[in-house]
Amino acid sequence: MVQFLDVPAVVRLVSRIGPVPFLAGLVDYLESDFRRWESFEKSARLASHSSVGVIELMPTADETLYAFKYVNGHPANAALGKLTVTGLGVLASVETGYPLLVSEMTVCTALRTAATSALAAKHLARPESATMALIGLGAQAEFQALAFMAATQVRTIRAFDINPAALAKFERNMLARGMTIVATNSVDEAVDGADIVTTATAAKQRAAVLHSSQVQAGMHINAIGGDCPGKTELELGVLTRAKVFVEFEPQSRIEGEVQQVPADFAVTELWQVITGRAPGRTHARDVTLFDSVGFAIEDFSMLRYLHDIVQRDGGAEVIDVVPALRDTTNLFGLFTGT
Amino acid sequence: MVQFLDVPAVVRLVSRIGPVPFLAGLVDYLESDFRRWESFEKSARLASHSSVGVIELMPTADETLYAFKYVNGHPANAALGKLTVTGLGVLASVETGYPLLVSEMTVCTALRTAATSALAAKHLARPESATMALIGLGAQAEFQALAFMAATQVRTIRAFDINPAALAKFERNMLARGMTIVATNSVDEAVDGADIVTTATAAKQRAAVLHSSQVQAGMHINAIGGDCPGKTELELGVLTRAKVFVEFEPQSRIEGEVQQVPADFAVTELWQVITGRAPGRTHARDVTLFDSVGFAIEDFSMLRYLHDIVQRDGGAEVIDVVPALRDTTNLFGLFTGT
Repeated sequence: MVQFLDVPAVVRLVSRIGPVPFLAGLVDYLESDFRRWESFEKSARLASHSSVGVIELMPTADETLYAFKYVNGHPANAALGKLTVTGLGVLASVETGYPLLVSEMTVCTALRTAATSALAAKHLARPESATMALIGLGAQAEFQALAFMAATQVRTIRAFDINPAALAKFERNMLARGMTIVATNSVDEAVDGADIVTTATAAKQRAAVLHSSQVQAGMHINAIGGDCPGKTELELGVLTRAKVFVEFEPQSRIEGEVQQVPADFAVTELWQVITGRAPGRTHARDVTLFDSVGFAIEDFSMLRYLHDIVQRDGGAEVIDVVPALRDTTNLFGLFTGT
Repeated sequence: MVQFLDVPAVVRLVSRIGPVPFLAGLVDYLESDFRRWESFEKSARLASHSSVGVIELMPTADETLYAFKYVNGHPANAALGKLTVTGLGVLASVETGYPLLVSEMTVCTALRTAATSALAAKHLARPESATMALIGLGAQAEFQALAFMAATQVRTIRAFDINPAALAKFERNMLARGMTIVATNSVDEAVDGADIVTTATAAKQRAAVLHSSQVQAGMHINAIGGDCPGKTELELGVLTRAKVFVEFEPQSRIEGEVQQVPADFAVTELWQVITGRAPGRTHARDVTLFDSVGFAIEDFSMLRYLHDIVQRDGGAEVIDVVPALRDTTNLFGLFTGT
């Protein structure tokens, strides 16, 4: 039986658990998969580029489960009233090759991206970090705020967007969620007193949303928006004064903020910090930077988590995409009823 | 709106049109895509191997449509009462990256494999070929017979399988379909007088289902079962006396019958014959061999055909896997209803 989660089903499932407890559970799944990072089959995304965007397949597998995500990136979609990024994911059994779960991955990608950010901050930010600047209040903003609430001590968000409507939307969505939202009028004002700075802006360009002069000793920077060639958010000086952590180095060198620096610029993969293989933050005054681009194992964790939830609690539809035949050589029997 | 076809929907859709007219239409779609072969983005499959099987992603795209298939190959599944090969496919818009159609691809793979065989025979077999030996009466058998009925003059099938139950199943499924089925007791008997020989056996080994001594001048051989490393069906001598045609040479060298011969053994890609770029059969006494392994463009054609049918006639479910948002920056509004 293949389980299927469409957008309303994912929204219902997350709402039933509550977004913050759901994200807390997801951070646990991510952490357990990052701990066994080396046991995954990893490859760069398989990308199909056109003049207007990219369509990618992101597969990974461990010894028992295989997962992939279909995902697109089309910056011009926003002008068409469409989403820039949408996705569809499949979790399958390595033993039989049969799909187990098919899920929408647009909402799920937002959830897993935020949960990965929070996981990184849990290991890299100063433990007492309580205030986060959130720069860029687009589709990812609320998910980031709630994931940090789920996995860290962050309870105050200093919010900024160049578009006032985005701020209004963010404040509305964050009402009565137990976080203090401080509206600010500039990046300077947002980062003032922030322990953590999250950048999640959308413009596909070499931007410098955050400047080196705005970075204080001890800060953790969570850079979400620089995630494809030609799209970065940080001034070069921010990278050079920080300890930089990435997901999967070969992919991050091409897609992340570190596309700005030479190939010998030192980066550490996050799983190495989580497993104790490599140091993360070693001093309270270190500046740490998580240069996030998204990796297939995060989608794997998301699909594994969803599958465990629907196996336990239901909430998914069952779809008939693999024939159940009494005689497997009689596939044509589907047409003859024999 | 994303269309969705599960197994019952594909069976209903094909049955409504009729399997033979459906396959005739599919051969036309395949032929038109093979004619513009060079306009497709092509890559080898992205495979994830385990000790018990393989899971593959097979993507391709032209300038307006992108398609991929998830497909597994698990020989041990048969012993578990499961299918060796199952699949799931997605057709998407290159312009927006949005999925257009999600379909089961287990039945669809059987259909497109058979239609591709018939397309190859249409261009490579002697035009008056009327009798086909069908060796191996498993899941692919009826689809092969009906596709040849749709696109060639073949009306007599000389059928053989080492398992008598498979023959009984085949005869039952082929009742009253306008083809003459001749049951035979050996490969020798099956190929006797056959214009075309189709081998579609399942054993994962270096088999020699068809020997050079059984091949007559003028025959066309349609070799379906040799489709992964270590799995072949033809004695080496069959290859060396035939003109060999493949789908996508880099993939066929690894997966097809031609894995048995050195890399400089001459093969011709089928699209070159269809477009007139390369000769196919040049004499009535030529032995031609289509060494089929399956390629992503065939799944693309299948999904494009299905999408056109359901756009015109319906028959698909609509699934909600891409959020339709008034404000695309307000993805979290799905949770707040704003």
